[in-house]
Amino acid sequence: MGVLSSLSARFQHPAQVVVAGFSLAVAVGTALLALPISTATGESAGWAAALFTSTSAVCVTGLAIVDTESHWSMFGEMVIAGLVQVGGLGIMTMATVFTLLVSRRLGLRARIVVQAETKTLSMSDVRQVIRKVVLFSLFCEAVAATVLTARFMIGYGESFAGALYLGVFHAISAFNDAGFALWPDSLMRFVSDGWICVTVALASILSGLGFPVVFELARSWRHPRRWTILTKITVGVTATLLLLGTLAFLTIEWRNPRTFGPLDDSGKLLAAFFAAVMPRSAGFNTVDISQMYPSSWLTTDLLMFIGGGSAGTAGGIKVTTVGLLAFVVWAELRGESRVHIGHRSLPDTAQRQAVTITALGVAIVGLATYALLALTPYSLDQVLFEVVAAFGTAGLSTGITANLGTAGHLLLVVLMFIGRIGPLTLGSALALNRRTRHYELPEERVIVG
Amino acid sequence: MGVLSSLSARFQHPAQVVVAGFSLAVAVGTALLALPISTATGESAGWAAALFTSTSAVCVTGLAIVDTESHWSMFGEMVIAGLVQVGGLGIMTMATVFTLLVSRRLGLRARIVVQAETKTLSMSDVRQVIRKVVLFSLFCEAVAATVLTARFMIGYGESFAGALYLGVFHAISAFNDAGFALWPDSLMRFVSDGWICVTVALASILSGLGFPVVFELARSWRHPRRWTILTKITVGVTATLLLLGTLAFLTIEWRNPRTFGPLDDSGKLLAAFFAAVMPRSAGFNTVDISQMYPSSWLTTDLLMFIGGGSAGTAGGIKVTTVGLLAFVVWAELRGESRVHIGHRSLPDTAQRQAVTITALGVAIVGLATYALLALTPYSLDQVLFEVVAAFGTAGLSTGITANLGTAGHLLLVVLMFIGRIGPLTLGSALALNRRTRHYELPEERVIVG
Ligand SMILES: [K+]
Ligand SMILES: [K+]
Repeated sequence: MGVLSSLSARFQHPAQVVVAGFSLAVAVGTALLALPISTATGESAGWAAALFTSTSAVCVTGLAIVDTESHWSMFGEMVIAGLVQVGGLGIMTMATVFTLLVSRRLGLRARIVVQAETKTLSMSDVRQVIRKVVLFSLFCEAVAATVLTARFMIGYGESFAGALYLGVFHAISAFNDAGFALWPDSLMRFVSDGWICVTVALASILSGLGFPVVFELARSWRHPRRWTILTKITVGVTATLLLLGTLAFLTIEWRNPRTFGPLDDSGKLLAAFFAAVMPRSAGFNTVDISQMYPSSWLTTDLLMFIGGGSAGTAGGIKVTTVGLLAFVVWAELRGESRVHIGHRSLPDTAQRQAVTITALGVAIVGLATYALLALTPYSLDQVLFEVVAAFGTAGLSTGITANLGTAGHLLLVVLMFIGRIGPLTLGSALALNRRTRHYELPEERVIVG
Repeated sequence: MGVLSSLSARFQHPAQVVVAGFSLAVAVGTALLALPISTATGESAGWAAALFTSTSAVCVTGLAIVDTESHWSMFGEMVIAGLVQVGGLGIMTMATVFTLLVSRRLGLRARIVVQAETKTLSMSDVRQVIRKVVLFSLFCEAVAATVLTARFMIGYGESFAGALYLGVFHAISAFNDAGFALWPDSLMRFVSDGWICVTVALASILSGLGFPVVFELARSWRHPRRWTILTKITVGVTATLLLLGTLAFLTIEWRNPRTFGPLDDSGKLLAAFFAAVMPRSAGFNTVDISQMYPSSWLTTDLLMFIGGGSAGTAGGIKVTTVGLLAFVVWAELRGESRVHIGHRSLPDTAQRQAVTITALGVAIVGLATYALLALTPYSLDQVLFEVVAAFGTAGLSTGITANLGTAGHLLLVVLMFIGRIGPLTLGSALALNRRTRHYELPEERVIVG
């Protein structure tokens, strides 16, 4: 295959680069966080807490077994922010390079098209992608940090230094969909603060669309008909999920005295929108999740499992996967012999990839749910929520994360890692490995259902 | 289309015949069960209880909001057995006729092949299928009733008349996967009785394989290589699920003092095997489901959702559907450009049908779970169990059925109806309606995951 082979002659496949890169980042992060200097007390946090926190940061999951602000020192917090930045940039660059190989449509430079045909990219192309992704990320983070810093100064009386520190940390955390916050109750104190909630939500939505989609929107947002299938599906499914999610949370929690009840109508709308955006995988919360009704947990489970767009910082099986499956179902119900999206025909291989990623996602979540049910005394709704939050790198929790025991924590570490790099490596492996048979076997009809 | 048009000029499609037939049976059953003569007290059971019980019987689900033995008179019990028999035979004959149309491989008579090409069957072909299915059902029920009657006489000191009544009722209930029992605790008193448990389990497995598979097995069980894909997948997935299910229940419940704990080792094995067979959709239980661990509930949920084979009395999305999806995933992971099963290639349409039926099943179960969570105070595990039991026509329950309120009961009535006839009517509609485009749109590559 020789893809990305210029990065290293030892790596035969992009999947190996991804696994090796993320493993290395987790290991370095664990070592740094285990240093005494990383904790507020000056005693080492221990390997278990360091490994869990490092994995959660690199995989931009945001699950925590110790309170981020009180447990870690400022050095520790900066390590976490650094790991989040490395993890977020890493997944976005690698996924974008992969998208170039598969879709041949990003059009960064004309010759990439030719190279993508032969499934190779030169080192300079890769460098260019990395530069664009990094510049885009830093620009968005700078804008978000500016708004947040100003708001912390003006609205909450923080000093400039204090507000800047909080602004930069939460801008990085929001744009990379990490969900780490420097308050023990996440962003609950800002539930009615539109400046903070909307800034965090927009940063998360933008990065969660994925770089290729953002790039195409920036170029041709006036001409939706010319968009690639990737952009059409990502925008369509994202908008649908945000709308339905907001409506669902509004309906379910409207009168809940422990969540939306005390808020005025516009506050309820803001809180519902925020609750609908966060499972895409940013993972902050402005209401107490443990007090939400079970239907809200189920809604959040669904949104976390789906996640965001491909080649962005969001996790989950991706809105593209769900959108393709919806088109397959729709075509089948209409009796179409092929699946069409707009005026394009969808290759059978893309359909099978969507089925495969969804099926493996369900299987992994199912097995992990079994294991955690057996390891802990918690009920199905809480365990399922925790497992999906780890797999979907959303990092929301009903509050049981710290009490899952060492075995439970190790399970979550593995799950966060698989959830973060699994869909990408699997997607690239499926799309780039393709055997061809030189003869075809006869078809046989089968009944289904 | 004109399929089955000889049955009635008014019905344009087999799906309409199925819906009309089952609706009529439910209506007649409701009217009969609402008669004062149907209850033990001689007062009418009321429309709600009559409708629920009639739907549960016709759809061979087995969920009950009143205790079958104490609430109904002998006349009422015979009405229930009759509805079960009509529902079971109805689904098996209709599904078998449909299988003939689609697979063209049952080979009852040579000329059916020619007719299937044109997607029509003559009235005499339909009659022949119905006769074979009825004879097969009555023969199996007679064998099961004989064993059960003898056991009730010899092992439990029943009179011949009493034993015969119990034997026939439970043989009908078992073979048609209905799960109605004349004891308030289902079959819990027989947990260690191999005669009864194995007879009930075998009757359920046999009818759950589906008539076309049983027919092919009877003809060519010596030559597995020559089996159709339908038979290969049905036998393979059924055996796998029974084995994994038995192992799962053994592992989870081995030490549970309220379920398997008091049993000896062979008793545990029998109880685990029985617990693995019943969610296929017979729906009896020999241990107290409300006392099983949450992991066992989840295992049962999965097995109930999958159900049994196509064109039999079992419910769920069917083992065929799951088997096809597994082959799709496997082919995709191996990088095959087409899906092969044995030495046959699987049509893309069958893959999309499997995706569609699974996706709609998940959507229906999800929506119903939401609704029941909102309508009742029960937790996700109990609500999900109840919903899947109704959708999969398995009829097992954690014991909350009677307490779901009128709205909850109506929801379950709709769900039992959809769960029973949905996959068949959808499957037939998908397979028989097929548009062809006279031009093809260009393909566009998409990334997934
Ligand atoms: K997150
Ligand atoms: K049943």
